[in-house]
Amino acid sequence: MASLVPYPPPPGIDKYLPSPQRTGEFFLTLTYATSLDSHLSIPLTQVPLSGPEAKSLTHHLRTFHDAILIGVGTAIVDDPGLNSRLPGTPMTRQPRPVILDPTFRWKITWESRVVQTAKRGEGLAPYVFVQSEVGEGDERKEILEEVGGKVVVIETLGKQRWSWHVLSEKMKVLGLNSVMVEGGGGVINDLLAEGNLPLVDSVIVTITPTYLGQGGVNVSPSAVLSAADGKRILAVNFKDVEWRVLGRDVVMLARPDL
Amino acid sequence: MASLVPYPPPPGIDKYLPSPQRTGEFFLTLTYATSLDSHLSIPLTQVPLSGPEAKSLTHHLRTFHDAILIGVGTAIVDDPGLNSRLPGTPMTRQPRPVILDPTFRWKITWESRVVQTAKRGEGLAPYVFVQSEVGEGDERKEILEEVGGKVVVIETLGKQRWSWHVLSEKMKVLGLNSVMVEGGGGVINDLLAEGNLPLVDSVIVTITPTYLGQGGVNVSPSAVLSAADGKRILAVNFKDVEWRVLGRDVVMLARPDL
Ligand SMILES: NC(=O)c1ccc[n+]([C@@H]2O[C@H](COP(=O)([O-])OP(=O)(O)OC[C@H]3O[C@@H](n4cnc5c(N)ncnc54)[C@H](OP(=O)(O)O)[C@@H]3O)[C@@H](O)[C@H]2O)c1
Ligand SMILES: NC(=O)c1ccc[n+]([C@@H]2O[C@H](COP(=O)([O-])OP(=O)(O)OC[C@H]3O[C@@H](n4cnc5c(N)ncnc54)[C@H](OP(=O)(O)O)[C@@H]3O)[C@@H](O)[C@H]2O)c1
Repeated sequence: MASLVPYPPPPGIDKYLPSPQRTGEFFLTLTYATSLDSHLSIPLTQVPLSGPEAKSLTHHLRTFHDAILIGVGTAIVDDPGLNSRLPGTPMTRQPRPVILDPTFRWKITWESRVVQTAKRGEGLAPYVFVQSEVGEGDERKEILEEVGGKVVVIETLGKQRWSWHVLSEKMKVLGLNSVMVEGGGGVINDLLAEGNLPLVDSVIVTITPTYLGQGGVNVSPSAVLSAADGKRILAVNFKDVEWRVLGRDVVMLARPDL
Repeated sequence: MASLVPYPPPPGIDKYLPSPQRTGEFFLTLTYATSLDSHLSIPLTQVPLSGPEAKSLTHHLRTFHDAILIGVGTAIVDDPGLNSRLPGTPMTRQPRPVILDPTFRWKITWESRVVQTAKRGEGLAPYVFVQSEVGEGDERKEILEEVGGKVVVIETLGKQRWSWHVLSEKMKVLGLNSVMVEGGGGVINDLLAEGNLPLVDSVIVTITPTYLGQGGVNVSPSAVLSAADGKRILAVNFKDVEWRVLGRDVVMLARPDL
């Protein structure tokens, strides 16, 4: 895979990244690229959303996190590389790909891009989070292990989904103390929900000047009701908001205001 | 109604406004304020979306258009004033409010804000576009006429909705050669639809750093399919894109790229 054309990251970005001096606490950055109508993608079509400047920023951000996390929906649809392709990124700055795949439905093969990337020494091999033990004969497990990845079993204790509290504890145990969550829609909406928002340290959203149109993967968290009168209130508020124009796109840097 | 606190309009805004030298052609500016999740409002709740800087820009823009147009949904929910409340705006720079209300369901009274505004000489009285003649006894018609407004009948010729081509022709006949369309969701999505987009000259969108959450009035045009292969493509592309940071908000200035 060819390197990206690097662009300088926008000024002041460090304020929204895990500090290297940080001790112990977990750091979670939520980041994605979207259209004016808050769609991440069009079904069955690969549309390039953000421009080269914003893409370069994403790869820059990846080098500041121990892990990069996506849902299995994105793994299947996009077959992503999940590494930093900025020229000269050392392996020590490559993030660990983490895929949330409770029922292990991702068809990993030797051709999967993240496997190829790990095999070529251009990125780390993925950790796939699943709900229950995977049979020894499962070839996907062997492929993962051969390139340095693994299947990680996290029980859901009867619940349908892992809480983000459990996920972050598990990542810490795995030595992953910072994570950049990149999508897709299911994961992002889950993380923006009331109960999970306190776990989010930074939000970095690239908005591309286009409308994808109805029927795509949409980012919009569940409605939130006021505890006082039961009326609807803003679902998510932000503080420390800064905007940066990056090529044709604009990027919001912010922190949830709880 | 108190005046607004004026803020200087962002540099370069004139490029996106009808030029005073323009002769004949109609000019349509689409403008609205939205959340990160492309929602205009939360049902049954008045949430202040944009900050004072963006609000001041909206009132500045109003002084550059002959008319300001909204759908009846917005007239009913927001009871808006539809004038420029920038201090010192002369009556010659106040826009004519136009409300699209095919079945004349808007309950105009003497208390309606737009009526009060006209009565106080702080704005023009509205033209309400309806589908069929309104009975002489209808008090709403009298109220409108008493303050200088009127009911304008535009037949739909059996169709459910007016085409924007018909609407712009009608406005020209009424001496309204430029219009700023402010919402709400129904009107905006209609105007962003493939067939109507060629009528849009400028798009000015304020994005506020917040998520309203699911279930509100959402801006997202209908999906568009490629004429070549029937696959989905971007619904709306833009050219001449510029972003301006206005307080906590960001504003996109652009033109549809057809
Ligand atoms: N524009 C961008 O920045 C961007 C970034 C990434 C992805 N995308 C797009 O997003 C689309 C995919 O989005 P998506 O919503 O379909 O899929 P997704 O969010 O990638 O994956 C969702 C799935 O992940 C699993 N999952 C997520 N949270 C979980 C939790 N807390 N506990 C357990 N399992 C959890 C569930 O798997 P199960 O269903 O198996 O339970 C869930 O259905 C693709 O089109 C992709 O191109 C865009
Ligand atoms: N954030 C912002 O900038 C902003 C600005 C304005 C409004 N808003 C919000 O938007 C919400 C209202 O949106 P909405 O979608 O419910 O209503 P709306 O767009 O204001 O009005 C829609 C109605 O207008 C009529 N109409 C629109 N286009 C027409 C056409 N081409 N031909 C004939 N009739 C047409 C139809 O009336 P009939 O149904 O009678 O046929 C239609 O249902 C409110 O909550 C308001 O607060 C927000």
